[in-house]
Amino acid sequence: MNKWIVETKNFKIDESVVLECGTELSDINVAYETYGELNDKKDNVILLFHALTGDAHAAGYNSDEDKKPGWWNDMIGSGKAFDTDKYFIICSNILGGCKGTTGPSSINPKTGKPYGLDFPVITIEDTVKVQKKLIDSFGIKKLIVAGGSMGGMQALQWSIDYPDMVKATILTATTSRLSAQGIAFNAVGRNAILQDSNFNNGDYYDKTHPEKGLAIARMIGHITYLCEESMHNKFGRRFQDKDKPDFDFGVDFQVESYLQHQGKIFVDRFDANSYLYITKAFDYFDLAAQYGSLEKAFEKTNSKFLIMSFSSDWLFPTSQSLEIKNALIRAKKQVSFCEIQSPAGHDAFLLEFEVQTKIIKSFLRNLE
Amino acid sequence: MNKWIVETKNFKIDESVVLECGTELSDINVAYETYGELNDKKDNVILLFHALTGDAHAAGYNSDEDKKPGWWNDMIGSGKAFDTDKYFIICSNILGGCKGTTGPSSINPKTGKPYGLDFPVITIEDTVKVQKKLIDSFGIKKLIVAGGSMGGMQALQWSIDYPDMVKATILTATTSRLSAQGIAFNAVGRNAILQDSNFNNGDYYDKTHPEKGLAIARMIGHITYLCEESMHNKFGRRFQDKDKPDFDFGVDFQVESYLQHQGKIFVDRFDANSYLYITKAFDYFDLAAQYGSLEKAFEKTNSKFLIMSFSSDWLFPTSQSLEIKNALIRAKKQVSFCEIQSPAGHDAFLLEFEVQTKIIKSFLRNLE
Repeated sequence: MNKWIVETKNFKIDESVVLECGTELSDINVAYETYGELNDKKDNVILLFHALTGDAHAAGYNSDEDKKPGWWNDMIGSGKAFDTDKYFIICSNILGGCKGTTGPSSINPKTGKPYGLDFPVITIEDTVKVQKKLIDSFGIKKLIVAGGSMGGMQALQWSIDYPDMVKATILTATTSRLSAQGIAFNAVGRNAILQDSNFNNGDYYDKTHPEKGLAIARMIGHITYLCEESMHNKFGRRFQDKDKPDFDFGVDFQVESYLQHQGKIFVDRFDANSYLYITKAFDYFDLAAQYGSLEKAFEKTNSKFLIMSFSSDWLFPTSQSLEIKNALIRAKKQVSFCEIQSPAGHDAFLLEFEVQTKIIKSFLRNLE
Repeated sequence: MNKWIVETKNFKIDESVVLECGTELSDINVAYETYGELNDKKDNVILLFHALTGDAHAAGYNSDEDKKPGWWNDMIGSGKAFDTDKYFIICSNILGGCKGTTGPSSINPKTGKPYGLDFPVITIEDTVKVQKKLIDSFGIKKLIVAGGSMGGMQALQWSIDYPDMVKATILTATTSRLSAQGIAFNAVGRNAILQDSNFNNGDYYDKTHPEKGLAIARMIGHITYLCEESMHNKFGRRFQDKDKPDFDFGVDFQVESYLQHQGKIFVDRFDANSYLYITKAFDYFDLAAQYGSLEKAFEKTNSKFLIMSFSSDWLFPTSQSLEIKNALIRAKKQVSFCEIQSPAGHDAFLLEFEVQTKIIKSFLRNLE
């Protein structure tokens, strides 16, 4: 069978964007992919948002040589949850990222060198502002927004910032604000990068990158994406390729081997500075603080909402989804909520595609 | 009021000890403190074990200048849970530690330099073997053992290894084996140390120590000692000394400030190599694997058991205490169990002294 080949495209924003921190950012490029066809009325649009370390490549393959499809390939395509027979689906790389959209590894037009830490600190609102420029370029006036984890934060922000555009908002494994524990995990990961002897205040692009710190940050992240139950099921206390310990500081247990592997492969595909910027945007996101209360945040939205949480997700637990649901109800908005039973932890939104597909299809059908 | 001054003493083991890894370790020193008086029958002994980064200094002050008392001062003393009016209480620093007992920072008699990574990898069984030598030196034949967290692991091992000596075993916030998630947290902490550019394969004693890696390890540890609820109560999403974010990579939130402070003060008092060795002993401890099953592990013990867990402890959750309790019941041993309601997470065993005192006093009274 032929592979479904999708091209990552680029959109250059021809004006500068004023960010929440006050800085004006110009020459912004947005990397994005589209799946399906935009109809004549331009009203069959679903805008998807990726999570922390994702990219615009949500489905299909970029080339025949690609071994893995896009990160939400199980959810996007003909007959799937986000059905390309009906919908025109857009996914763009986040501002501050390292997968095509302008970020700290991009060339600063003022210096001709990568921004590094001269890149402004961004927020979820900023990322949404940039996505809006992309959507405007298509002439799209109405859309559905959807995302998991940090993608859900962007979907929430869209529903609030552009109430006349967003018809429906699909949220999975997300929150309206990170807990203190969530901030703590991000902060330790950032510290590992900032303290890496190769970090060089973010100016490392022509030198060895702070790979050790970034790998540590990724290992911490992976512990929070799984959960005790999924780690127990996957690894238990089994030794890696042996039946007794080595009595040294190499890898003894399978779970250690898994984490080291995850750290190692991550540094090949991700920029440490982008990790700093995106986790900071993660930490800052707080709709209740921004609008006075979560209920007030939702006052002007005209969207219908679908919220899915996962029983074993301890990073963005069900209680945080219920906070969103309850605030929406108090703000007299239409909301459907489902806690999906899953042993997969936070990662469930990338794995439990069958049940998410059923729920999303039913939600989208009811919008028609 | 005069301070209760306690001296840390030293016991030199005059024979070598064969460790579980096969290495014979000689010239072992054990740092210990005692509280109360040993009676003539030498049958009023309680041996306490400290947790991961603790030391022999469990109660009182080492000098008039000391600002803080020992780590379990609220539990040890006249009329307290471990009552010095009745009991002779001993606490020694763990083998592999850096607070007086021989460990990787001690001088290797063969080279005249600190062991570093030439120190053998130790297990909980090894630490217990060394403590036994100390107890023998007093001529003590019967005792009660007690400990929280990794201290509880040592108490469990004592009850199994010396069934004719241990009358009673008091366990708080402990486990018979770390979960995969627990191993994962330890592994990431160790990685941060091993990857620190100052680690130098453990040979850093005359140079800059791997302080950055050790601080990261400690920050990760602190996240697991608290819990979402205690972090929320302590810090929430409050900013540190300001009311809005700085839009940079300094400290924004109180929880970040707390963790950085904990990391910073830890490197002044703890050795990175000891952190490696002790967390490894932590990971290796697995009574069910050692004896075939937890029930079999407890077959020969003649101890009575008291087990306390804390409702919000997610590092050593109540379910793991229940595993111990249920195995003891299957092995037909006497066991009392209590889950203490507390919002303090794993740290509760160091904080919730009032309720622990009531339970321990009642348990000890029933032994008489």
